[in-house]
Amino acid sequence: MSVIYERVAFIGLGLIASSMIHAGRRAGLQGEIVGTARSPETRAIAREDGLCDVVAETAAEAVKDADLVVLCVPVGAMGKVAEEIGPHLKPGCTVSDVGSVKRAVIEAVKPHLPESVHFIPAHPLAGTEHSGPRAGFAELFENRYTLIVPDGDADPAALARLERYWAGLGAHVEIMEPEHHDLVLMVTSHAPHLIAYTMVGVADDLRRVTDSEVIKYSAAGFRDFTRIAASDPTMWRDVFLNNREATMEILGRFIEELMRLQRAIRKEDGDLLFDYFTRTRAIRRGIIEAGQDTAAPDFGRGHGKGGTEG
Amino acid sequence: MSVIYERVAFIGLGLIASSMIHAGRRAGLQGEIVGTARSPETRAIAREDGLCDVVAETAAEAVKDADLVVLCVPVGAMGKVAEEIGPHLKPGCTVSDVGSVKRAVIEAVKPHLPESVHFIPAHPLAGTEHSGPRAGFAELFENRYTLIVPDGDADPAALARLERYWAGLGAHVEIMEPEHHDLVLMVTSHAPHLIAYTMVGVADDLRRVTDSEVIKYSAAGFRDFTRIAASDPTMWRDVFLNNREATMEILGRFIEELMRLQRAIRKEDGDLLFDYFTRTRAIRRGIIEAGQDTAAPDFGRGHGKGGTEG
Repeated sequence: MSVIYERVAFIGLGLIASSMIHAGRRAGLQGEIVGTARSPETRAIAREDGLCDVVAETAAEAVKDADLVVLCVPVGAMGKVAEEIGPHLKPGCTVSDVGSVKRAVIEAVKPHLPESVHFIPAHPLAGTEHSGPRAGFAELFENRYTLIVPDGDADPAALARLERYWAGLGAHVEIMEPEHHDLVLMVTSHAPHLIAYTMVGVADDLRRVTDSEVIKYSAAGFRDFTRIAASDPTMWRDVFLNNREATMEILGRFIEELMRLQRAIRKEDGDLLFDYFTRTRAIRRGIIEAGQDTAAPDFGRGHGKGGTEG
Repeated sequence: MSVIYERVAFIGLGLIASSMIHAGRRAGLQGEIVGTARSPETRAIAREDGLCDVVAETAAEAVKDADLVVLCVPVGAMGKVAEEIGPHLKPGCTVSDVGSVKRAVIEAVKPHLPESVHFIPAHPLAGTEHSGPRAGFAELFENRYTLIVPDGDADPAALARLERYWAGLGAHVEIMEPEHHDLVLMVTSHAPHLIAYTMVGVADDLRRVTDSEVIKYSAAGFRDFTRIAASDPTMWRDVFLNNREATMEILGRFIEELMRLQRAIRKEDGDLLFDYFTRTRAIRRGIIEAGQDTAAPDFGRGHGKGGTEG
């Protein structure tokens, strides 16, 4: 593949940025990689590992002469970063981001950017429960979707270039409107995370069952929730604070539905439960057929000696 | 390993029974394996695959001369099976089960069994989202707990023998009281399943997001819920109908907690969210340290070409 952006600047060097860097380097998508992070420790790690060609001390410095600037900071920090880099952006460059909500990011970032740059938000639907500059790997985006989410009309050439870049990183690329993005992601990502956090919190609180029992016997289902509930706290705090309306809507629906099942259990309505539990199987089949999860039992986790159990 | 029971009868031939058969055969724990299932299709598959040494037409016939009888039917069917086999059990034999709730099973089964047999309930904390006589595999119980749950005092020799059998199948064996079992399992298994079913149901209902979008973009968290929500509907219907009090208690706590987080989001209380999301990480660490899940990112699911993605 050939170079798509001569100079790319990453603001924030966590799981997503470090994965983009590894994937982009492998595919030769960028001439030079500049990176920066707020924390001196992260910058030191990036230097030690040679993660970037240049590690800048500040975001303002990092974006100088960059053709693509990718904001990889928590959603709540995007506005402040945009304010800092605005005056230093090269005219004609593209500014993008990887935030999990889009309307709030557009509102926070756009006012700080000069007319002369292309602001094209994006969101790679990929991640693990690990975080930090050493969590990244080149394969993270393969077979995963990256949604590009322009606010109204985007410059067609700049948009096509960003699409090519993400395809080069390995992702399936689709275009979506900000409001629809925020609703879809609420269903597929934000609500599941909030619910997993809640379940793990309830288990931790329940004094009649000890934490050590919860931990020992977690294979019965609970442990899947704990993986999700181990994700980066800052990132998720910001997601919920910045997608409040969709969160409220779906939590309301969720609680309503949970109460319906609760009522069915109290009334011993076995038919309702059976039908409900049957219907949800179809969605799982769809996900496997679409290649978005493995059909191997238990996610293909190793069982016993021959496997990968920790 | 040497033979622990000369003749073992399995009533019901699904995931758990077929895994016990494979594991027991590999370890040489039983002389002869008799099995039966209510459905003619399942019996035909068992015959075709040579799953059992003998496939009996009825439960009454299967238990004749058996030293161990394992009830592997849904919790709601245990009472009826016990009634059928009661008069045909060999004096001195052990009757056990693998049901996910224990108090309700004890109440359903015990009245039908003669004084001359040892009834010692058990529950292997292992499973996958697959079901049926071909879903089993010998490694299912390795590095997993099996809880043996006597109702009051059990005959020490019969109890020790059942413990040896389960250890031979690969499990860590622990003893627990029925009421405590039902509460612990509610937290580690039943509630997570009900909540996963609810989440998948809500996603399916929400007309503004299409099923195909939910499926395509599920990697962002939702797909983990769909695996759990693809489990056997009959089994789970019976679990909830037979552990109603603990279900009501924990759902109450869950809804309360979810509303607390909802309120924090509405009031933009970022500190509460951050603290909550940080605390839940510790539980995940405990599970990995206890060897009950893999530390590999994303459960070690393959990413991209080199991996196991379906």
